[in-house]
Amino acid sequence: MKLIRFGPCGKEKPGIEIDKGLRLDVSSFGEDYDQNFFESDGLNRLEIWIDKNLKEIPVVPDTVRLGPPIKSPTKIICVGLNYAKHAEESGMTIPKEPVLFFKSTSAIVGPNDDVILPKGSTKTDWEVELAFVIGKRASYVDEASAMDYVAGYVLHNDYSEREFQLEREGQWVKGKSCDTFAPLGPFLVTKDEIKDPHNLNLWLKLNGETMQKSNTSDFVFGIPKLVSYISQFMTLLPGDVISTGTPFGVGFGLNPPRYLKPGDTVELGIDGLGNSKQYVKAFE
Amino acid sequence: MKLIRFGPCGKEKPGIEIDKGLRLDVSSFGEDYDQNFFESDGLNRLEIWIDKNLKEIPVVPDTVRLGPPIKSPTKIICVGLNYAKHAEESGMTIPKEPVLFFKSTSAIVGPNDDVILPKGSTKTDWEVELAFVIGKRASYVDEASAMDYVAGYVLHNDYSEREFQLEREGQWVKGKSCDTFAPLGPFLVTKDEIKDPHNLNLWLKLNGETMQKSNTSDFVFGIPKLVSYISQFMTLLPGDVISTGTPFGVGFGLNPPRYLKPGDTVELGIDGLGNSKQYVKAFE
Repeated sequence: MKLIRFGPCGKEKPGIEIDKGLRLDVSSFGEDYDQNFFESDGLNRLEIWIDKNLKEIPVVPDTVRLGPPIKSPTKIICVGLNYAKHAEESGMTIPKEPVLFFKSTSAIVGPNDDVILPKGSTKTDWEVELAFVIGKRASYVDEASAMDYVAGYVLHNDYSEREFQLEREGQWVKGKSCDTFAPLGPFLVTKDEIKDPHNLNLWLKLNGETMQKSNTSDFVFGIPKLVSYISQFMTLLPGDVISTGTPFGVGFGLNPPRYLKPGDTVELGIDGLGNSKQYVKAFE
Repeated sequence: MKLIRFGPCGKEKPGIEIDKGLRLDVSSFGEDYDQNFFESDGLNRLEIWIDKNLKEIPVVPDTVRLGPPIKSPTKIICVGLNYAKHAEESGMTIPKEPVLFFKSTSAIVGPNDDVILPKGSTKTDWEVELAFVIGKRASYVDEASAMDYVAGYVLHNDYSEREFQLEREGQWVKGKSCDTFAPLGPFLVTKDEIKDPHNLNLWLKLNGETMQKSNTSDFVFGIPKLVSYISQFMTLLPGDVISTGTPFGVGFGLNPPRYLKPGDTVELGIDGLGNSKQYVKAFE
């Protein structure tokens, strides 16, 4: 199943995308895709409801804005330096255990919303990432059962302001949390539809030029390890987003570095997770 | 006004504390103290409702458990190294601009709930802190108007596992986010009741021995600066918690360092913000 949310920003309704990109409005199901939905076996309940009501579910026009496919996750946890070749090529040491940082949930927007360069930003960068969404409360989970806690996958562009992240005092969070810095979607694809999340091509283009091109088979730490590891430090709640890191090809790593300017267009995609496209704007 | 939430964990009801510690159940107001409440002028609406209904509002028994006084904030942002003398005494450089890090909201508990040492923890530490709560959406706010965005203040113990924070790969968040690591309360005191938040005594005792004793007049960065500064990097939402850093006297800074053991008792307080007390337990 592919979950979408559509409509004006902040007033999104839940929907699904079925074969051939056809989108359906499942507002009549009566729930949005939030913590309660995932916690109360919403994915199974929704599937049963759709089977019963498919003929009466209205179609969503193709022109509608897509929002983020989940509502109000309690946290976004990102993993740093999680592609082995990326780390090697950058001359960085592969971390012995996952590097974690947080991104403010207020950064979340729809997959094709504009990305707004923060005031004073000169070093806004892109990062295509496979993110996954937690399906049930996870605390001290072992690797063997970790996949039971995953609801599905979602395409994420982990926008990062490198000056804010690295040249101001303190932790990375300053460069990761600006508004519009977390486009999610086009859809959340449920776990059953992705045969092997550790073998997916992912790519990102800037103004049509390929900047990132890799495969999740290059992960240093796979999804079961990440779920298990993170759950040793904090409780993961249903709907929480974990973003698995980005491969080689971000602007910061180029020589000379290259950053986003107003008018640029960023497109990205992952096998089975769809594509997204953001137009870059200055803050007004 | 002093807002409380009371009752079993996860099922707390909203209340207020009035003169002489008397607590009242304001469930009939029909709202909990969440983002919507603060965003929709809830503090003023609640005050008017209480004036009209005071005689009929039920009293809460003294023995009831207190929960965190706000419901589901979207983020907890903490400020590091924000007491000048603490930084000097520790031989650390006073930061030129605020050091920020996040703490998972899943760490929030009531003010007198047990603190649970995470599995494998040998370096769990205490940090008494003045936290404030955002009253309205703040983005690119200037210092002059910053206090308009503050709803009130709350006592916070920013528990920190120093090995997880500093000796594992990556960012501080691993040592800050464990379950029970953010006791908030006893109450949220509204801004009008605290004459000067930059001149409050704060203290923390371990098993009756004073470990921290300072005054918020030693802040490197005051509350208006923090609101303004953080709002340059991300949007602050109503109900969000900002914790202003801790003074000298944490276990990590002692020679030799001293950390929490099962059976320890931690008590803390700030002028006008009440006291809290946590009993230290091992994870079971």
